[in-house]
Amino acid sequence: MSEQVTKAEKLDASDVLAAKRAEFVLDDVVYLDGNSLGALPVAVPGRVEDVVRRQWGELRIRSWTEGGWWTAPERIGDRIAPLVGAAPGQIVVGDSTSVNVFKALVGAVRLADAGRDEIVVDATTFPTDGYIAESAARMTGCTLRPVTPAEVPGVLGDRTAAVLLNHVDYRTGRLHDLPSLTAAVHAAGALVVWDLCHSAGALPVGLDEHGVDLAVGCTYKYLNGGPGSPAYLYVRAEWQDRFDSPLPGWNSHAEPFGMRPDYAPAAGAVRGRVGTPDILSMLALEAALEVWDGVTVEEVRAKSLALTDFFLECVEEYVPGGRVECVTPRAHGERGSQVALRCPDAGVVMERLIGRGVVGDFRRPDVLRFGFTPLYVGFGDVERVARVLAEVLAE
Amino acid sequence: MSEQVTKAEKLDASDVLAAKRAEFVLDDVVYLDGNSLGALPVAVPGRVEDVVRRQWGELRIRSWTEGGWWTAPERIGDRIAPLVGAAPGQIVVGDSTSVNVFKALVGAVRLADAGRDEIVVDATTFPTDGYIAESAARMTGCTLRPVTPAEVPGVLGDRTAAVLLNHVDYRTGRLHDLPSLTAAVHAAGALVVWDLCHSAGALPVGLDEHGVDLAVGCTYKYLNGGPGSPAYLYVRAEWQDRFDSPLPGWNSHAEPFGMRPDYAPAAGAVRGRVGTPDILSMLALEAALEVWDGVTVEEVRAKSLALTDFFLECVEEYVPGGRVECVTPRAHGERGSQVALRCPDAGVVMERLIGRGVVGDFRRPDVLRFGFTPLYVGFGDVERVARVLAEVLAE
Repeated sequence: MSEQVTKAEKLDASDVLAAKRAEFVLDDVVYLDGNSLGALPVAVPGRVEDVVRRQWGELRIRSWTEGGWWTAPERIGDRIAPLVGAAPGQIVVGDSTSVNVFKALVGAVRLADAGRDEIVVDATTFPTDGYIAESAARMTGCTLRPVTPAEVPGVLGDRTAAVLLNHVDYRTGRLHDLPSLTAAVHAAGALVVWDLCHSAGALPVGLDEHGVDLAVGCTYKYLNGGPGSPAYLYVRAEWQDRFDSPLPGWNSHAEPFGMRPDYAPAAGAVRGRVGTPDILSMLALEAALEVWDGVTVEEVRAKSLALTDFFLECVEEYVPGGRVECVTPRAHGERGSQVALRCPDAGVVMERLIGRGVVGDFRRPDVLRFGFTPLYVGFGDVERVARVLAEVLAE
Repeated sequence: MSEQVTKAEKLDASDVLAAKRAEFVLDDVVYLDGNSLGALPVAVPGRVEDVVRRQWGELRIRSWTEGGWWTAPERIGDRIAPLVGAAPGQIVVGDSTSVNVFKALVGAVRLADAGRDEIVVDATTFPTDGYIAESAARMTGCTLRPVTPAEVPGVLGDRTAAVLLNHVDYRTGRLHDLPSLTAAVHAAGALVVWDLCHSAGALPVGLDEHGVDLAVGCTYKYLNGGPGSPAYLYVRAEWQDRFDSPLPGWNSHAEPFGMRPDYAPAAGAVRGRVGTPDILSMLALEAALEVWDGVTVEEVRAKSLALTDFFLECVEEYVPGGRVECVTPRAHGERGSQVALRCPDAGVVMERLIGRGVVGDFRRPDVLRFGFTPLYVGFGDVERVARVLAEVLAE
């Protein structure tokens, strides 16, 4: 074991992101569930207290203008933009991921050429995307076609209006090929909506570069926005003028305080807004995003791959062969920032790991899921997790 | 003037809600904008700090179960229920009012008898309701018919599927007759959706008693939940089994952690949930609702009418005749908890009022809007507002 300990020490010593760990509230637990709920950034509690006590408590209604509340959805969208490879003016924050999937998918169908009446959806995706896609199909007169991501290129055709794909599979951690799948959808004349929940903040997405049409994502995983923090919607600049939201609330109006009976959509990303933004959660997220100052997502990706490589190496060395099966792809190009290990007694194993200070999560029926968040997980942590896992599995 | 001062003192001395004022963070400003953003309840900052520092920062992912996060939408819904005359199990909190209008109105159309294809909407309502109603009509194949509330009974018929009405007009403060309008809609065989944004927490609503089908409301006005705090959805118990949400996110699934590809709706109010609940804002709201302990909405209504009566009396006495025109009805049965005064230079007048410590709001083109929140506004405040208004108008 000591060889891996030495290796971990060397890797930690040369980790360019090591100092970022101090910007999070952490204890002696190894927290590998940041792909469910990111750890608390140190900057957040003070900001939230200021929002509550001063902005709400003292300035009250004036904060809507003087406190920057009204423009928060697009301002924070622009803060997320570089993390997903988007130029400013294309992202707004607000609502849940599910609600944004509905906006994006209905919007995509309405942007597609007339006569196209099929929505293709990743059948292996996080279920909410499939449920919402079914509703979007029903409400736009489309047929829903659930297929695996590998089958997507084969089913595209003249009828395809839109395709909803998940960038990283929430269960296996498999990274799908966004550039080539986007190109295939475009070659068929359709639009693509990408769900970035498990990739944004963990790896480069390149929305603008790869010509993605629309995208959504949550902010409480690798972006550390806090429990249920608002999600975001990306609408590519060239589609914005024709983006036709199924949820045209007053916040998306060209003149929201004109209180006009007729709806006239705002220009730009703001058109993706709906109702009054949820300020407490939104400004907590804004403070949380400060940890990205001076960090590139490429650095994060490099460390993420190094962390998961090292974890797989330690597991191979420490855990007896055959005891667990890795369901996360080995190829870097197919790996997100998590490692999923299958073992028959995964539920009990995860309970014991948590009891020994290693927090991952259990996905039924038999998957141990470990999320590696490069801003606050180190190589020493990784070695410890593999060691504790081996101990638990040996019991 | 001294006669009204004496009267205010007497009214304050016999005010059964006077002690509630101490449960809010207030200063020497008279805050009559609680119908836009309620004042900060004293209990909120500590609760939010606990949610951020301990529940998120220390317990992290465990708080979803141990901290009661997962069940917050229905738990807080049950806390709101008595304030709007609803038995438990019919309200869930989450999403914005606009998103809930969409759920409620599409749900109502789907509950209506086949062949009914018209949505009637209050043309004088807060605009977002009209915009969302238009989208709901478009996506359910209905025609939208905007009429004034007074015209509603006359346009109901065999084609009417659903009617969307606002309980209190946001501009004039007019209270619409919920029991008789609900009865008229039912007599026509249609369903009614009420928007309670400007009534909940200010006056009795009686959702169960009057047979309301669905209702929505925000929580940041008279319920003091904080800026953009989550809204709520009421689905009458007898409709819940057939309620068919257009936003069937994973939180509304019968087995949300089963991660099943097929959607199966949960029973009860939970079916109105969509995505991951916004915990910071939601638990701030929960703490804010503690101010209702020991208070009945009937007491609040009695004080609200006394406050607005007294305000109108002081305005009549202090302000020269013809200088302002009251657009809020005089009859108690037609008055919400605000008074709207029309005057040609309303924008400038409101600026000056705010400069002298009287905060109301200005609604274009010519309306001064004063909201009276009985939990923290007193009669002395009211006399002061009328006096300062008279001074400003005399300049």
